[in-house]
Amino acid sequence: MPAQREHKQPSPSGRSLEHPDRADIRLEGVLHALSDPMRLQIVRDLAAVEGELNCSVFDLPVSKSTTTHHFRVLRENGVVQQIYRGTAKMNALRRDDLEALFPGLIGSVLTAASLQATRLEAAS
Amino acid sequence: MPAQREHKQPSPSGRSLEHPDRADIRLEGVLHALSDPMRLQIVRDLAAVEGELNCSVFDLPVSKSTTTHHFRVLRENGVVQQIYRGTAKMNALRRDDLEALFPGLIGSVLTAASLQATRLEAAS
Repeated sequence: MPAQREHKQPSPSGRSLEHPDRADIRLEGVLHALSDPMRLQIVRDLAAVEGELNCSVFDLPVSKSTTTHHFRVLRENGVVQQIYRGTAKMNALRRDDLEALFPGLIGSVLTAASLQATRLEAAS
Repeated sequence: MPAQREHKQPSPSGRSLEHPDRADIRLEGVLHALSDPMRLQIVRDLAAVEGELNCSVFDLPVSKSTTTHHFRVLRENGVVQQIYRGTAKMNALRRDDLEALFPGLIGSVLTAASLQATRLEAAS
C-alpha cells in the first residue's frame, strides 16, 4: 500500500489544510460534494469568478458552522482548494484537476445547475 | 387458487412504483443518486445495454436488500425507471428525461466513471 500523500499548500500564516492529490480524487466523492444545493451554489459562484473568493463573501442561508462544513466537504472531495492568506480563508475551484480527471463533467454540472435555476425561477 | 392464476392479467395498479415526473427531477438528487459506487455501476450497466435489465442480472457485492435500496434511490431521484413485468422488476435509465433536463450530464458522468475505472485498474 502506497504511503498516503497529502497535498498541503504553503501558507503565509503557517496554517494549511489537507487536500487530496489529483490522483486521489474520486468521481463518487465529487458527485457527493456537488449533490447539495448550498455546495452547488458555492461551486457556481467560484466558477463565475474564475479565481479565489473569501469564505465571508458567500451569503448562504445557513449558519457559519454549516457553511464551514460545506466548504470542508468540497475540499476533502477535491472540488475546491482552500488556502489561508493571513486571517482569510480563500477558496478556489480545482477546475484544472477536475477537468483532467473528468473531462467535461464540471462544465455539464454548471450548465445543468444554471438551466435548473432558470426553470425553477420561471415556475415560481 | 389455480383458476385465478389462469386469468392473471397484466394490470399492476397495485404494483406500480412511484417515479418523479420529468419536471420534478432535481440536479442535486441526480448527483446524490450517482454518488455511490454501486449505483454508478448500475447506471453504467443500464447505459451499456440501452434497454431494460432485470434487477436479478446485477451482480453487486452487496446484499439483496441493499441492492433494492440502491435501485429505489435511483428511481426516486429520477435516474432509472422501474416497471413490473409479471414477477420481474425491469430497470431502464431515464436517459431522455435526464438529457432534456441536463444536457451532456449523464454522458460526462459515464465517461468519467469509465476513465476512473481504467485508472484504478492500471494502478492496482
